[in-house]
Amino acid sequence: MSAASALDYLASHRARIVDELIDYVRVPSISADPAHRADMGRAVEFLVAQLRRIGLEHVEVLPTAGHPAVYADWLGIPGAPTILVYGHYDVQPAAPLDAWSSPPFDPVIRDGKLVARGGSDNKGPHFIPLKVAEAYLATTRKLPINVKFLIEGEEEIGSRNLEPLVSANREKLAADFVLAADGARWRIDLPAVNFASRGIVALEATLTTADRDVHSGRYGGTIANALHLLARLVATLHDAGGRIAIAGFYDDVRAPDPAERAAMAELPFDEAAYLAGIGATTAVGEAGYSTLERQWLRPTLDLNGMWGGYTGPGSKTAIPAQAHAKISCRLVADQKPARVVELIRQHLELHCPAGGRIELRWGGHGTPAYVMPSGHPGLTVAERVLHELYGRAPKRVRIGTTLPVSDMFKRVLGLDTMLFSFSTADEGFHGPDEFFRLQSFEDGLRAWTRYWEILGGLSPGSFDRFRCHAA
Amino acid sequence: MSAASALDYLASHRARIVDELIDYVRVPSISADPAHRADMGRAVEFLVAQLRRIGLEHVEVLPTAGHPAVYADWLGIPGAPTILVYGHYDVQPAAPLDAWSSPPFDPVIRDGKLVARGGSDNKGPHFIPLKVAEAYLATTRKLPINVKFLIEGEEEIGSRNLEPLVSANREKLAADFVLAADGARWRIDLPAVNFASRGIVALEATLTTADRDVHSGRYGGTIANALHLLARLVATLHDAGGRIAIAGFYDDVRAPDPAERAAMAELPFDEAAYLAGIGATTAVGEAGYSTLERQWLRPTLDLNGMWGGYTGPGSKTAIPAQAHAKISCRLVADQKPARVVELIRQHLELHCPAGGRIELRWGGHGTPAYVMPSGHPGLTVAERVLHELYGRAPKRVRIGTTLPVSDMFKRVLGLDTMLFSFSTADEGFHGPDEFFRLQSFEDGLRAWTRYWEILGGLSPGSFDRFRCHAA
Repeated sequence: MSAASALDYLASHRARIVDELIDYVRVPSISADPAHRADMGRAVEFLVAQLRRIGLEHVEVLPTAGHPAVYADWLGIPGAPTILVYGHYDVQPAAPLDAWSSPPFDPVIRDGKLVARGGSDNKGPHFIPLKVAEAYLATTRKLPINVKFLIEGEEEIGSRNLEPLVSANREKLAADFVLAADGARWRIDLPAVNFASRGIVALEATLTTADRDVHSGRYGGTIANALHLLARLVATLHDAGGRIAIAGFYDDVRAPDPAERAAMAELPFDEAAYLAGIGATTAVGEAGYSTLERQWLRPTLDLNGMWGGYTGPGSKTAIPAQAHAKISCRLVADQKPARVVELIRQHLELHCPAGGRIELRWGGHGTPAYVMPSGHPGLTVAERVLHELYGRAPKRVRIGTTLPVSDMFKRVLGLDTMLFSFSTADEGFHGPDEFFRLQSFEDGLRAWTRYWEILGGLSPGSFDRFRCHAA
Repeated sequence: MSAASALDYLASHRARIVDELIDYVRVPSISADPAHRADMGRAVEFLVAQLRRIGLEHVEVLPTAGHPAVYADWLGIPGAPTILVYGHYDVQPAAPLDAWSSPPFDPVIRDGKLVARGGSDNKGPHFIPLKVAEAYLATTRKLPINVKFLIEGEEEIGSRNLEPLVSANREKLAADFVLAADGARWRIDLPAVNFASRGIVALEATLTTADRDVHSGRYGGTIANALHLLARLVATLHDAGGRIAIAGFYDDVRAPDPAERAAMAELPFDEAAYLAGIGATTAVGEAGYSTLERQWLRPTLDLNGMWGGYTGPGSKTAIPAQAHAKISCRLVADQKPARVVELIRQHLELHCPAGGRIELRWGGHGTPAYVMPSGHPGLTVAERVLHELYGRAPKRVRIGTTLPVSDMFKRVLGLDTMLFSFSTADEGFHGPDEFFRLQSFEDGLRAWTRYWEILGGLSPGSFDRFRCHAA
């Protein structure tokens, strides 16, 4: 059995493989900081050298308007499933440096954890499939499936050049689905597969009452104050029970599955600790739903910013003629960003108090919610692998945040994206003392090896019913 | 008759007097701008030289922690009424210069108007009593009453050193009342005396929901958003009819006098022009009151600023943990600033939505409304003078803004303040092309001459019932 020999290989080369990961993590490939431009190049060189040494074909650097992506493939089994492995070689800035227990780019192993910037997000997790490919090729001269790697360099700065790159390389990137080495496990003590994320749409509203700010003595009490009107207006966006009060807002929201709600009710979740962790005193939200349901299953509308009038020190007795609000919604299936913007517009215009007029600014962008189809092999194989690995069936969980790449791969390539990362949500991704558990690295190597093996046994038609037309 | 000779003197020296005013206005005495420190000194020298040449006694420069004030007196009739004349020699900055039709400190006379920064606010108006004193002294060697001048240099930057100065000079500044050459006539086409102004109190409220801003994906829909809570909270400050909904807020508000309301209803007031002037579409305010009543007779509560979360370009999907509001109230008699702050505090704490806590910041300052007592000679003499001058009884009007010096003179010296300025509200005080009507200058010279003459005929006991103990 080919997986067995690959696993033996990984076990016997363990120390060298961890050393290689340490070398990779040592490169301060901070995409946000122009001072690290040369380091971005060093990370690309490291990846290219690795992919070539492993024995992958067509290793190439794909330029973008910003930092390049690295591509490689092995397509030796025509007719077998083809996966596109996604990851990113860029990392977050490390500042403030004095908050770190050890230098961020001088990796150390402490209590079974590799402590370094980028260890968990995302070099450790995407180094796993590289080493799994190496193990298969070294022991069997082939992989169980066809594999394409796409490792980008701008995830931490919004992946702004990824969609043009993917659009321009549709044929090269064609596959049965995307297996992402990015994302994070919900928690370390609970085997789980993440099958859904919320979408997002963001806009800005401006309420105007007059041509200019006026003196609060001369005009106070006689004309509309833009801040009063905007406060009253945004207060209408939710009802007293915390439900979004915009007409039609929930029309496209897929009703939660009672079975999923029952399963969620059994998930261990410490609400008191969740609140205490951010210094909040009270769980707040849509009536009739638990905190976890509100986070995973329900859409939101949040003011991310609001301002108007004088905001400096001391006082200024002017009545503001304009007030502004930044509004964003987390979306669930089957809400469409443009439709949600239109409903918000209608609500704001309808409820704008007398004396004010409202204008909306929306860039035309948005990301719908993403849900991996229930029976998709990418998902069911992951569940089978984790069940074997941990000896119990993994839970299906969602994530409240938005993963724009999942939506982008669906739109541009017509592919679903399965998150199969072995980082964990508590590993301090964007903060000091980021770490990656070596046990997770170990688990990941075993899991990806087995995943590819099982996938290689599927018939080529297994993905047909999930394939859709790309945009 | 001494007034007649003084008026003759003023008429025959008219051209020279206007030239002197032009010289005075030519000095760019901008108190806010350290670059004009020497010009502030030049304005002081001009005033001192004028006061000495006129023949006033005890001309002195009173230093403060900032710009000095100029004091002078003539106390030659023991037992006669004594007035304290107030004005200010500092002016507003002139920027933006390109909005001016002619250079702000190069005075020109155009269509009977002296166009220059400071012409109307306040050099022209307080130059009038100087020239009236000159006329009386030149023609009769005495004034009809005792006069003290206090011309300060920091009115345009908040008169911050005036109260300490007045407190330290209580005996020097003792008088029967203050006759202020500052303020402004409501409009040019309606003779009026201003007898009341609103007070003010300002504070800042901060609403906190958590220790820090959190990710709107991870926490959205589950915890309180400080901006939502503050918007809902401030929306409770007024009822649907525009009345302030704070319990007890109107308890100390003196009920409007029906006779005054009836008189106000007959004042010509073009509401459409008032709104169009600032680009507002709708009059808004407390139900049951006209726009003018709302501006003069009723207290207000305005948000002067509100902010929270991200206010820069683009979007940031964080849920703000803090939101802030700057709140100010215009007060009417008999509201006390500290009591109003306490009522606001109680309201905000009582209505703060679950999940938020509110903190108030108040510097401990405030100015109550000011009302000149109805039968005060300072007021009735002004009415008599204007009736004679314009041939019809002047209206009694109020002003919606706050005149802290009136309150300060009352608190520190126990004196009422009568506003007797001949500037007009439309003369562009703080904007470009500020101007002062030469006809107003002429009217002012005649009015102040007659005012002093009538005052000189009053018995010394006329002010006894209006005198109160200073703080």
